[in-house]
Amino acid sequence: MADDDKGKQSGNSSDRVWVGFDLGGTKMLAVVFDENFEVLGRKRRKTREKTKDGVQLERLADTIRMALADAGVDESAVQGIGAGCPGPLDLKKGVILEAPNLGWKNVGLKDYFVEQFDCPAEICNDVDAGVFGEYIDGAGKGARCVLGVFPGTGIGGGCVYEGKIFRGSRASCMEVGFMQMTTEGPAAGVGPVGTLEGLASRLWVSAEAAKAVYRGKAPNLAKLAGTDLSSIRSGSLSKAIEAGDKAIEEIVALAAQQVGRAIGSLVNVLAPDIVVVGGGLAEAMPELYLSETRKGAKRNVLPSLKDCFEIRIAELGDNATVIGAAAWVRQQTDGSDT
Amino acid sequence: MADDDKGKQSGNSSDRVWVGFDLGGTKMLAVVFDENFEVLGRKRRKTREKTKDGVQLERLADTIRMALADAGVDESAVQGIGAGCPGPLDLKKGVILEAPNLGWKNVGLKDYFVEQFDCPAEICNDVDAGVFGEYIDGAGKGARCVLGVFPGTGIGGGCVYEGKIFRGSRASCMEVGFMQMTTEGPAAGVGPVGTLEGLASRLWVSAEAAKAVYRGKAPNLAKLAGTDLSSIRSGSLSKAIEAGDKAIEEIVALAAQQVGRAIGSLVNVLAPDIVVVGGGLAEAMPELYLSETRKGAKRNVLPSLKDCFEIRIAELGDNATVIGAAAWVRQQTDGSDT
Repeated sequence: MADDDKGKQSGNSSDRVWVGFDLGGTKMLAVVFDENFEVLGRKRRKTREKTKDGVQLERLADTIRMALADAGVDESAVQGIGAGCPGPLDLKKGVILEAPNLGWKNVGLKDYFVEQFDCPAEICNDVDAGVFGEYIDGAGKGARCVLGVFPGTGIGGGCVYEGKIFRGSRASCMEVGFMQMTTEGPAAGVGPVGTLEGLASRLWVSAEAAKAVYRGKAPNLAKLAGTDLSSIRSGSLSKAIEAGDKAIEEIVALAAQQVGRAIGSLVNVLAPDIVVVGGGLAEAMPELYLSETRKGAKRNVLPSLKDCFEIRIAELGDNATVIGAAAWVRQQTDGSDT
Repeated sequence: MADDDKGKQSGNSSDRVWVGFDLGGTKMLAVVFDENFEVLGRKRRKTREKTKDGVQLERLADTIRMALADAGVDESAVQGIGAGCPGPLDLKKGVILEAPNLGWKNVGLKDYFVEQFDCPAEICNDVDAGVFGEYIDGAGKGARCVLGVFPGTGIGGGCVYEGKIFRGSRASCMEVGFMQMTTEGPAAGVGPVGTLEGLASRLWVSAEAAKAVYRGKAPNLAKLAGTDLSSIRSGSLSKAIEAGDKAIEEIVALAAQQVGRAIGSLVNVLAPDIVVVGGGLAEAMPELYLSETRKGAKRNVLPSLKDCFEIRIAELGDNATVIGAAAWVRQQTDGSDT
């Protein structure tokens, strides 16, 4: 993280900067990068001001201006703004079609940024941007084909194929959480029963963990979080496992195995070189999550593909989306053919 | 299908021709195309001469020469030869790593064609070539993303994304037959239980049909094929259904629904515009297969993607692979960046 001085002193490198923007349901993050994707400045704020209603686009522009001030860089140096956004999106028009967490519908974010900063702007799916970030500078660096799987409250995915984000036509794609895994079992919020999201999302893990607490099988988690679903987060699950809650470890292991089995099916289809697994659970318990995911994948992947791929835990955390979004707008404006 | 005259008379168009070659386990097919992918000549022969052992590469070259003679075109006019081959392949080196049906191992087909015909040559997976053919001139014509699913003895797949075949790194990909569908049920030849191939291949359909015959529930199939698995083929199943064997119709419908459900999962991941379903069963019973496949897909696809794709039956039959292979080598040699 750079302070004003670094931004000012770096001379040449701050003549041309790119902004990566991560629009979350709760928080947003703007980061200013130089040509080598070094961070010059950043600003994180709550996405919405509580006292105001409706779309607050000016708050997004203000956040970018604060990050530019943090970098000590003039607005005229901005070569492009890339924003990772919750879907569904109209990628061509740069419109957020619907963001229930924000109460937004049909918000033309791309045009707004272009108008405000007089530079190219692109929006893309936040998970796609994260996988692209891991491809540019993280666990998937330089691979021919990277599959990203991010189990969180839902289970998102993305794919970078030969240097480009694999995209759907009109909607985002790589909804790996909605692959059918079995014909029975719990349903996720949408879709049929037996999808990966119903079997392995953090919501499933938390609900199973709450049951274990209720049954007296997870004394440490009981102290840390109790039986309230919304208090059971990746951090408390991780701490409870470290403190010896075997029942919780088994629940997380089961979820990770299911994620691994879905990865195995997807490796048979996409034949990626590297599979990057990220999100709160995986990043809070990287060793457990990785070994169980590999176990699950091994079960489903074809013998001929067994030695052709590697599963890794994501390396960039929260920075993945901003790096990916900035790199994406840069690729789009540097004369790429997509 | 052109005769010699057509080839000779077409003048300009036969100055530059491309050859598509389909190397099957039993039969091979060579077709000569002009610049507009019109057929100038063709030759189909058994892949192996029974009296000879070992690799019979010269038989492949002879077949191409016979197709050129049928087209009335000189060898010097050949701009490229594309061959769709059974996998696994080394695409870069143009080597068939293993073709159990032919008893081949490490056969350098690309180099052989280059040496014999003094022109560029490429090999690709036969299903990939078929999907590319449907994209060039069939059911997937011009779509941004085409997913092909071909249930046969196994269940192969392919994807054409933004005009190019989606390929694996070292092995072929789109092994949609090895997607996990459930945690129970029959196993396919390789992989775990509950994969699509175990639940919906022609082998599964034939075995279920043989059981129905044995139980006296399929009187028409009994007359057409009996209980011998190897006599129960797509054509006889289709005829038995037409003649009123409800039990057989239900079996095919169930298999098609499973294929549809796998397609639904894959649409959530790849967001194709068009899904092309081909292979013997689908092409012998297009209406039944299409409606049941659509039913299965509808069950698994996310609401947001429901109106973004269409399932169609393949249009080109046996010609898909030769058209695709010829178009592929042409794309590779016309200055494409792949």
